[in-house]
Amino acid sequence: MANEVVLLSTWPSMFGMRVRIALAEKGVKYEYKEENLQNKSPLLLQMNPIHKKIPVLIHNGKPICESAIIVQYIDEVWNHKAPIMPSDPYQRAQARFWVDYIDNKMYDTWRKMWLSTGEEHETWKKELISIFKQLEETLGDKPFYGGDTFGFVDIGLIPFYSWFYTFETYGNFKMEAVCPKLIAWAKRCMGRETVSKTLPDEKKVYDHVVGMKKALESK
Amino acid sequence: MANEVVLLSTWPSMFGMRVRIALAEKGVKYEYKEENLQNKSPLLLQMNPIHKKIPVLIHNGKPICESAIIVQYIDEVWNHKAPIMPSDPYQRAQARFWVDYIDNKMYDTWRKMWLSTGEEHETWKKELISIFKQLEETLGDKPFYGGDTFGFVDIGLIPFYSWFYTFETYGNFKMEAVCPKLIAWAKRCMGRETVSKTLPDEKKVYDHVVGMKKALESK
Repeated sequence: MANEVVLLSTWPSMFGMRVRIALAEKGVKYEYKEENLQNKSPLLLQMNPIHKKIPVLIHNGKPICESAIIVQYIDEVWNHKAPIMPSDPYQRAQARFWVDYIDNKMYDTWRKMWLSTGEEHETWKKELISIFKQLEETLGDKPFYGGDTFGFVDIGLIPFYSWFYTFETYGNFKMEAVCPKLIAWAKRCMGRETVSKTLPDEKKVYDHVVGMKKALESK
Repeated sequence: MANEVVLLSTWPSMFGMRVRIALAEKGVKYEYKEENLQNKSPLLLQMNPIHKKIPVLIHNGKPICESAIIVQYIDEVWNHKAPIMPSDPYQRAQARFWVDYIDNKMYDTWRKMWLSTGEEHETWKKELISIFKQLEETLGDKPFYGGDTFGFVDIGLIPFYSWFYTFETYGNFKMEAVCPKLIAWAKRCMGRETVSKTLPDEKKVYDHVVGMKKALESK
């Protein structure tokens, strides 16, 4: 079967980056189509009519949505190399648990911190830091969340590294001071070409976020 | 290896019912421990320190949390019979997508309808009905979401059937009128002992929910 693989995403999306890293890990060639979320393409609306969100992976014409689901799909279809999910069912359940934790906590908390001021801002900042501290504790002394190998939770979390500068600047804190082991882990991940070639420059992300806030405030 | 299986849940929890159905499908014997969410047991707090939520499956002393993750774990560990996940990776991704859809939409929308009045109540009622209509459309003309066999999405959705009477009574609508094919599907699922023996009586669920609302209002 021919493998026609298309990815719809936007460059600053952490969730899109997950898919790009997974595809790179597997050595899958694909066509990347940048979406404009202010003016979504007919293809995106057709491929993800339920959520109308990126990322969407289109494999031989069929769409797969939701980044954690896409990464598992990639692991299952291109199973000849670089396993992403742990082979043990218990470890697999734990990996799913932590990616679900990231999905349900991180972006939402960041957004609330970003868009609030005063006491509310401080509350969300504390919450964001506590999420990172929890994730650092979960990593423990392992080189990767996958143990000795880079895996599902690593792919789920590392894209946020390109947003750390933005989190720090809006939250007025330093990740290095708060979670030094997490920073060491992130640098370890950046030693992989699949990661370093995927993550955008942190200053470029910050400029993008500043622009988004200006656009929101002018509405 | 001895299989010591313990389930922490509460009887009206749709999410706990998912796990009970999955265990019944696999013929796994387990100890059931009813939790009181107003006074959570030390065991629950120890086994799910992150979310402090039921259900938790404890398998040979090790906890697995989040119902969709638990059901996948059960399917992977007891893989000798009654497969729950589809064997095809694309079908598997689709099944995960729809269970994720149910998880992110249904309970939250119901709760908002339940706790609101007037125009807001009407808005959430419409949203709840639209979720059911979407799920009915997704089922199409198949006997089960898993096609000819009862599977992951069926397990993810059928526990809500024991809450339909409650949804209808608080929302003043009839599921049979709104989604007749979904009702036919639910009755088909109830033909399975694993489902009919797990789901509590709909009137008992309703009385429980009335009691919860009174407790909330007296606070």
